[in-house]
Amino acid sequence: MVELVHVPLPGRAYEVRIGAGLLDVAGEAILPILRRPKVFIVSDAHVAGLHLPALLNGLETAGITAVCLDMPQGEATKSWAHLQQVVEWLLSEKTERGDVVIAFGGGVIGDLVGFAAAIMRRGVRFVQIPTSLLAQVDSSVGGKTGINSPQGKNLIGAFHQPSLVLADTAVLGSLTARDFLAGYGEVVKYGLLGDAGFFEWLEDHGSALAAGDMAARIEAVKRSVQMKADIVLRDEKEHGDRALLNLGHTFGHALEAATGYSDRLLHGEGVAIGCALAFELSARLGHCSQEAPSRVRADRKSTRLNSSH
Amino acid sequence: MVELVHVPLPGRAYEVRIGAGLLDVAGEAILPILRRPKVFIVSDAHVAGLHLPALLNGLETAGITAVCLDMPQGEATKSWAHLQQVVEWLLSEKTERGDVVIAFGGGVIGDLVGFAAAIMRRGVRFVQIPTSLLAQVDSSVGGKTGINSPQGKNLIGAFHQPSLVLADTAVLGSLTARDFLAGYGEVVKYGLLGDAGFFEWLEDHGSALAAGDMAARIEAVKRSVQMKADIVLRDEKEHGDRALLNLGHTFGHALEAATGYSDRLLHGEGVAIGCALAFELSARLGHCSQEAPSRVRADRKSTRLNSSH
Repeated sequence: MVELVHVPLPGRAYEVRIGAGLLDVAGEAILPILRRPKVFIVSDAHVAGLHLPALLNGLETAGITAVCLDMPQGEATKSWAHLQQVVEWLLSEKTERGDVVIAFGGGVIGDLVGFAAAIMRRGVRFVQIPTSLLAQVDSSVGGKTGINSPQGKNLIGAFHQPSLVLADTAVLGSLTARDFLAGYGEVVKYGLLGDAGFFEWLEDHGSALAAGDMAARIEAVKRSVQMKADIVLRDEKEHGDRALLNLGHTFGHALEAATGYSDRLLHGEGVAIGCALAFELSARLGHCSQEAPSRVRADRKSTRLNSSH
Repeated sequence: MVELVHVPLPGRAYEVRIGAGLLDVAGEAILPILRRPKVFIVSDAHVAGLHLPALLNGLETAGITAVCLDMPQGEATKSWAHLQQVVEWLLSEKTERGDVVIAFGGGVIGDLVGFAAAIMRRGVRFVQIPTSLLAQVDSSVGGKTGINSPQGKNLIGAFHQPSLVLADTAVLGSLTARDFLAGYGEVVKYGLLGDAGFFEWLEDHGSALAAGDMAARIEAVKRSVQMKADIVLRDEKEHGDRALLNLGHTFGHALEAATGYSDRLLHGEGVAIGCALAFELSARLGHCSQEAPSRVRADRKSTRLNSSH
């Protein structure tokens, strides 16, 4: 079962495919947008070790050759030095203006490689193959790319939409419970952003999601991506509605800064706690019901308790 | 006398103002596009030494305050290191998303600072105040921004249109004869790009231009900018017609590479020689008349002989 979400931005429309085993058929999906049967993959060492053989095999069956570059894992990779390394590598590999770059990894790789693709030869196309839950439901869709500055997160970058997104939900099985739950914080955020039906669905299916139920995972990713796509269509450059997606991020970024953007608090964890704090604040200000904050906290908690990872 | 050329790109239209003394009234021109009366100027040390006081005074009379950063002069400034320096400086100065950055200098500064503005907070607006003839007739208009790679010139960058261009032709009086003529190579290119009337006008007015005739200089800049704007409107992202602007650049870049991108051959000089070579080649291939190459060479030569600088 492959679900599709269309992102019909004028002149740069693309498709998000969601399903189990998409790495194995990646070549078939990518071939139609290539001008020559060669791609340039940038990944992180951890993801490449686990999943690059499957991706390469999926490309090869469609006759596509690939060259690959591995980046170190972790938020510190979203830096000037690594941006320069990716861009100069692409140039040294003779990437041409009609070529396609593949970002294969979590949110760090997607942001970094998308930005490198945005500025290499003033813009080449790229494909997102997100491997974390957070990247599948959030960062791989919408075209926000960039790196961090010593002055703050994501302060340098570009709006550069991918040409295709392949979210292989089978890959989520290799995530640690902690990384899965960090991404789940972003999923819950979509429920909180005015889709009470989705929030209730999550209350019912949180345990199944955490336990690895594939149909439930595909459904959760699809509904999240659809909500994100709807918001991006209304406000691609974040002049208005797109700021909604920052729910939980004000408190979350403050917490991340306080913990030094380290492994002590993952981005998705900061967002989850930030959402809970935002609802606490809203309740105290009288903007939402007194019961709302405890439902927000409970949805995540029940999922954690039932996680099989 | 101030001449205006409009660049009506959808959603990012802007105006190029051309005239003598525009620095003195820069504040009046820029104030309408500011959200707060503060600008962020990046210049090169040579230009800043000559002209920054006039610009600051022009801004101050409209109540605009400014902070300034100087870059070293020369092509080597279009580098990763200087890009990072400009972006981090803008962030450290608390430049906000609604602010306006000013690129005050020749083509190097325009390309570098335009690119920094393109990626700082995923894009802030910028104003081009070009101080060389080459920048006034070519690089300040059209939105091509970027830096050089060890792999080649301008291989890293963005399409980012300025919000306003102020071409003060009085500033051209401070150029060396060599720098003026290097820019004149790009002016002649527009005449060669299918505007026989403009080429003939240049054959008649070349001496007056070189001697400093202000009305002639304004006219030459205006007609060049109008031609560039027309081409950019037809093909902003260089999928077709915009490649016309590369006339003379194939041979020119080869000559620049052979001389190590040094002062031995300025970019505009390379383009001028490249145009002459291109017409020689065309004549031998039978694509233009046998007399054409000597007219191309002569137009530039007569200007050089009559230069008063």
